[in-house]
Amino acid sequence: MDANKYRTGSFTLPGEAGYEDLTLKLAKRWGADVIRDSDGTQLSDQIFQSGYDIYSTICLVRADNEWAKANPDKLQQCYLMSQPVVAEGDSVAINLLDSYYKEQFKVNFTDDPKEFWQVFDRTSNTEVPLSDWAYDANAGTVTVKGTQKWHRYTVNFLAYRIWEEISAYNHRTNDWGDREHLMPVDPIHPEVQEHLLKYLERWLQEHEHTRVVRFTSLFYNFFWLWSDDPKRPYIVNDWGAYGFSMSAHAIRLFEMQYGYRLTSEDFVTNGLHNNSYLPPSDKYRDWMEFIHNFVVDFGKKCIELVHKYGKKAYVFYNDHWIGMEPTLERFKDFNFDGIIDGIFNGFEARKVAETPHVQVRELRLHPYFFPTGVNGAPSFIKGGNPTLECQTYWIDIRRALLRAGVDRIGFGGYLHLVENHPDFIAYVERLAQEFRMLKEMHVDDQPYCADFSVAILTAWGNMRAWGCRGHFNRGNFYNEVMESISGLPVKVKFIDFIDIAENGIPGDVKVIINAGMLDDAWSGGWNWQNPTVIERITEWVSQGGSLIGVGEPSALKHSTQYFQLAHLFGVDREIGLSVGFDKYPYQVCGSHFITADVNPDAMDIGDYVDNIYVLGPDTKVIAARSGSPVITEHQFNKGKALYFAGHKYNLENVRLLHRAIFYAAGKTGEFEKWFSSNYHTECAYYPNHRTLVVINNSFEPQATTITTGDGKIIDFKLKPIGASFIEI
Amino acid sequence: MDANKYRTGSFTLPGEAGYEDLTLKLAKRWGADVIRDSDGTQLSDQIFQSGYDIYSTICLVRADNEWAKANPDKLQQCYLMSQPVVAEGDSVAINLLDSYYKEQFKVNFTDDPKEFWQVFDRTSNTEVPLSDWAYDANAGTVTVKGTQKWHRYTVNFLAYRIWEEISAYNHRTNDWGDREHLMPVDPIHPEVQEHLLKYLERWLQEHEHTRVVRFTSLFYNFFWLWSDDPKRPYIVNDWGAYGFSMSAHAIRLFEMQYGYRLTSEDFVTNGLHNNSYLPPSDKYRDWMEFIHNFVVDFGKKCIELVHKYGKKAYVFYNDHWIGMEPTLERFKDFNFDGIIDGIFNGFEARKVAETPHVQVRELRLHPYFFPTGVNGAPSFIKGGNPTLECQTYWIDIRRALLRAGVDRIGFGGYLHLVENHPDFIAYVERLAQEFRMLKEMHVDDQPYCADFSVAILTAWGNMRAWGCRGHFNRGNFYNEVMESISGLPVKVKFIDFIDIAENGIPGDVKVIINAGMLDDAWSGGWNWQNPTVIERITEWVSQGGSLIGVGEPSALKHSTQYFQLAHLFGVDREIGLSVGFDKYPYQVCGSHFITADVNPDAMDIGDYVDNIYVLGPDTKVIAARSGSPVITEHQFNKGKALYFAGHKYNLENVRLLHRAIFYAAGKTGEFEKWFSSNYHTECAYYPNHRTLVVINNSFEPQATTITTGDGKIIDFKLKPIGASFIEI
Repeated sequence: MDANKYRTGSFTLPGEAGYEDLTLKLAKRWGADVIRDSDGTQLSDQIFQSGYDIYSTICLVRADNEWAKANPDKLQQCYLMSQPVVAEGDSVAINLLDSYYKEQFKVNFTDDPKEFWQVFDRTSNTEVPLSDWAYDANAGTVTVKGTQKWHRYTVNFLAYRIWEEISAYNHRTNDWGDREHLMPVDPIHPEVQEHLLKYLERWLQEHEHTRVVRFTSLFYNFFWLWSDDPKRPYIVNDWGAYGFSMSAHAIRLFEMQYGYRLTSEDFVTNGLHNNSYLPPSDKYRDWMEFIHNFVVDFGKKCIELVHKYGKKAYVFYNDHWIGMEPTLERFKDFNFDGIIDGIFNGFEARKVAETPHVQVRELRLHPYFFPTGVNGAPSFIKGGNPTLECQTYWIDIRRALLRAGVDRIGFGGYLHLVENHPDFIAYVERLAQEFRMLKEMHVDDQPYCADFSVAILTAWGNMRAWGCRGHFNRGNFYNEVMESISGLPVKVKFIDFIDIAENGIPGDVKVIINAGMLDDAWSGGWNWQNPTVIERITEWVSQGGSLIGVGEPSALKHSTQYFQLAHLFGVDREIGLSVGFDKYPYQVCGSHFITADVNPDAMDIGDYVDNIYVLGPDTKVIAARSGSPVITEHQFNKGKALYFAGHKYNLENVRLLHRAIFYAAGKTGEFEKWFSSNYHTECAYYPNHRTLVVINNSFEPQATTITTGDGKIIDFKLKPIGASFIEI
Repeated sequence: MDANKYRTGSFTLPGEAGYEDLTLKLAKRWGADVIRDSDGTQLSDQIFQSGYDIYSTICLVRADNEWAKANPDKLQQCYLMSQPVVAEGDSVAINLLDSYYKEQFKVNFTDDPKEFWQVFDRTSNTEVPLSDWAYDANAGTVTVKGTQKWHRYTVNFLAYRIWEEISAYNHRTNDWGDREHLMPVDPIHPEVQEHLLKYLERWLQEHEHTRVVRFTSLFYNFFWLWSDDPKRPYIVNDWGAYGFSMSAHAIRLFEMQYGYRLTSEDFVTNGLHNNSYLPPSDKYRDWMEFIHNFVVDFGKKCIELVHKYGKKAYVFYNDHWIGMEPTLERFKDFNFDGIIDGIFNGFEARKVAETPHVQVRELRLHPYFFPTGVNGAPSFIKGGNPTLECQTYWIDIRRALLRAGVDRIGFGGYLHLVENHPDFIAYVERLAQEFRMLKEMHVDDQPYCADFSVAILTAWGNMRAWGCRGHFNRGNFYNEVMESISGLPVKVKFIDFIDIAENGIPGDVKVIINAGMLDDAWSGGWNWQNPTVIERITEWVSQGGSLIGVGEPSALKHSTQYFQLAHLFGVDREIGLSVGFDKYPYQVCGSHFITADVNPDAMDIGDYVDNIYVLGPDTKVIAARSGSPVITEHQFNKGKALYFAGHKYNLENVRLLHRAIFYAAGKTGEFEKWFSSNYHTECAYYPNHRTLVVINNSFEPQATTITTGDGKIIDFKLKPIGASFIEI
């Protein structure tokens, strides 16, 4: 392929007023077709007139701070749990906002605390009667009387959010000093809806140059509590949690629609706040559905307005994305034209690539043009290496883009920060070119892929397809597996326990993966109590389906086994209650298809679950560590179950998983079609383009041998991080 | 001290007919005053006439095999759970004894299965109605109809035990070939009691030379299921479990006494069989009490008979010891003259040393004179090193004997096996001498000891004082701590949750240790739900008591914290459901009293619990591993709580625990009284003897400095495993 044909287009550049020359110079060099603003930057007339398409960000809920200040009872709310306080006598005074960031929260005494709050004795796990506690709005406290000495007490209370978190984050990261704190309003109130639509219409009228309205994003941010201690600035953040979507008004609306009332504890859940690691309860699912419906209903009105003004509406798949839920049916009702996400990894690239009902899918790459990154490490300031950062992310993203295409890439932030990083400027130019060539491959084509599907089973299923709790949760087996599989030549589905119980296992699925830990949403937690799930999976394996379990698959403290599918896996875990029971001895088998490319004793398998034992002689142990099997195989009638005690995304383990999937599917004969022998490299073949793409996922030069679909052999040499596109 | 004065006495030699010369030669060399027989060996007239005291073993329940054969319905029973079978249709046939050792068990079809058995669907955790299953006594099966396809089914059934386990073990270990299998009868039946008393009386009459009747032991063996697969010969063994004490008759008697019926599942408990790692339920405690009362009532009749014949009655604190319970009140009613245990470790030595209501406490040392040891490793056959074995055990036992004395030592087994091990013969001579000197120290004296007590808190409390599940359960934090503390100069108590809830914490206790893992009896499991326990401990710490938690102290999935005493420890564990919550950062503090003698970064702490986090800035981290604190300190009002992520018995960790206890007790000023600077050595001072004993717990020569009670300094050099006794 002629790389020179791929020098322009599909690239969004963050422009910056005051740096017009730089903006236009880089727009040209990087082949941008679009210039955007970012939170904190403006564009200028010179940029508007430059002939590039203009994308403008808008975040409606924090857009009009004057109105927010004038309507403090319309601010967004959330439930907080006060820090547990040990009673040292027969009463206890609890400072509600203790340990929380006072610039983020203000206790909501407006909506009757006696209606919406609850006080708990967390030692005995009982609620304190309403008559036994009183609040003091001036002091910001609750006093509990009749306490049991030495018990711990907490208050679930509603708080207003007085500083919109994304804006606050940008403010702190960029030292915006005394710039006004923006406050988020809650469109659950009809008055807010009315005001926001009016505001949006005026904004659309004023932004004549804007071609695309870039919603960043809708109405409710992911859950993000901040602390008042600079040593631990954040208490919790969870990209998938609905903790910022509740308010007294919403709770009442929910009650009218669903016929029952949610309590504060339904949200607070022992301080765990229905975070993504908890299998969602039925009540929480109802709440999510309620919020989703509201966000779609009001969101589509905003988008209709955008379309009325002849502009496109793109949405950022992050920040205030709660309630948007692109994998659910009603997402199409928004009528979005495009979706954008800021990503680091392969699984996130797949999440964007597979978003339905939009024309344009765009990746905002990293590093963001900010002094420091999301984890606080230097990016464009001293100590940072933005080129290396960008390459590291690109290696992981690119392998996913080999399997599924997106339409655009871009960056965000303060453009002037890149000015003194010529190597970064040069690298982005090459990256953009490579992206365009990859994009071209997916036009009217799909890469060669296995003819079966792999289903990843979690309590979230398709609702969190290619998602977890945010960016890469290292050490989470589900996330690690998802990242590894994001670049493999197999079709991937995400299913949950309700799918299985109600509809069974889809016919094209040959392998089900369950990866997680006891009681978590990824393994499935209490869902494994459902006998229908066990029946369906057992029957399916019996008839030839295969399982891959990672970590604590199907784990639950229930009945006579810990892994509820131990009868299929042929292994279980000793969790310390049957130490006196002798475990069946095993020997590690010799060579195996799964470990053919690696040294199973020396490879870095990362964290793994210990104290695994085989149930009997029928379980084959493929690898073990410190006396505990880490890879096993067990046949159950026509199907098999593979167990991995852990999984960590790295190139060796990607190969291990690749082999395991084909082995489990009984497709070892097809494993070497369009296959790259060196596991530092991967390849994809696009039949309509007759083009083979080989990528080097390492920072060293690599040689490899490709086996084509009909068994021919082609030798390749690749530069560090290199990619080869050849027609054959 | 003049070691030559300590060449004879307090030593029990296993004699062997056919090896009379060897018996008498070794009796002289080792200074024996007693000759005993063992299971499998006889004594002869020549030995009887030799002038030594004669101890004769008797195990009543297996003593008369003819009678047992004639009364098969009086054999001992137990509940077994059949192997889970997955139903592949609407009925399933379950082979009851599948995987069990057929020479150990015979299904009991005599006592009505429909009265005593239960069938469970273990997938849905529900009992199958009686009408839906049928048994076939000829086939040894149960057939369940109306099964749910793909569910797992098990049968709880009664089985007769047709080969007494200790005899079977000795039979297998010594290749006794076609020697008849001895069967255990159950004295719960009045006919058995009558027969056994008659048998015993005749036996006493026939054993005129016997001075001491050595009961090995009483009526019910510890729980020990064998398998039919030689690759895993044993399914479970648990020294403390009452699984061999039940029978249809006993269940009916229990119902009459306690007013309620125990079901098979009350015993089987999901296949876990109320093993020692489970916190005992109230029902199981009732059963233990019932059996204990029975064993005392019938046992004392046997002992009365022994006394009537002018002999002494000693009992073996192992094997059929179930129901004996030396730590309980009624143990004194037996009127035993002595107790003996076969031990390997320090904690077991303390268990024997602290047995009340007996005149003589004897340790049977190891190795047993058998070809192989209890774990199957060679002892006296090729590949074994009995001298090294004996030394290794003695090092651990001796440090416990420094703190608490016993009266005798001895060996057991086939004496002729030692004949070709001259180094072993020589070593035992020295060991016996050293033992006698140690024993002398405890005559009218007690070694210097701290003036406070340490209480070890478990669900078992004093009932398993200095005991766990049998011999040393390596890796069990409770057992590891118990072994370490067995040689430390502090008073030790064992308390349980009922003690705390009903009586509070004893006044002399300055430190409570809780060491174990989630849900186990050692940590305490569900007992931590009891608010009274939390109140009492919290108040006690608030007023100046201190805790040492090891592993998962107070862990329970309950309410808002995982460690139910996290408010005291200042740490908790991330168990994978709050991964999105940022943890408070910490720095490891510099030097600390607890770690003054070790390198906290390099020492071998063994297994430890990971993902520990501090709750805030008030928790001091003394050591950490891979980002997880492993030793922490937290003040709560006047008391403090130390947390150790693990504990492994070794000399460094003994010192660590020693320091931690004194630090927690606020007694650092007294730590160096009668203190040995080198942690490979320990010392004890006996004030009435004015004698200082210093021991070397290592296989290398050691130099150390002793600080006396009044601060003087004495330098010592010790040989490998050496001991010094000096008057000062």
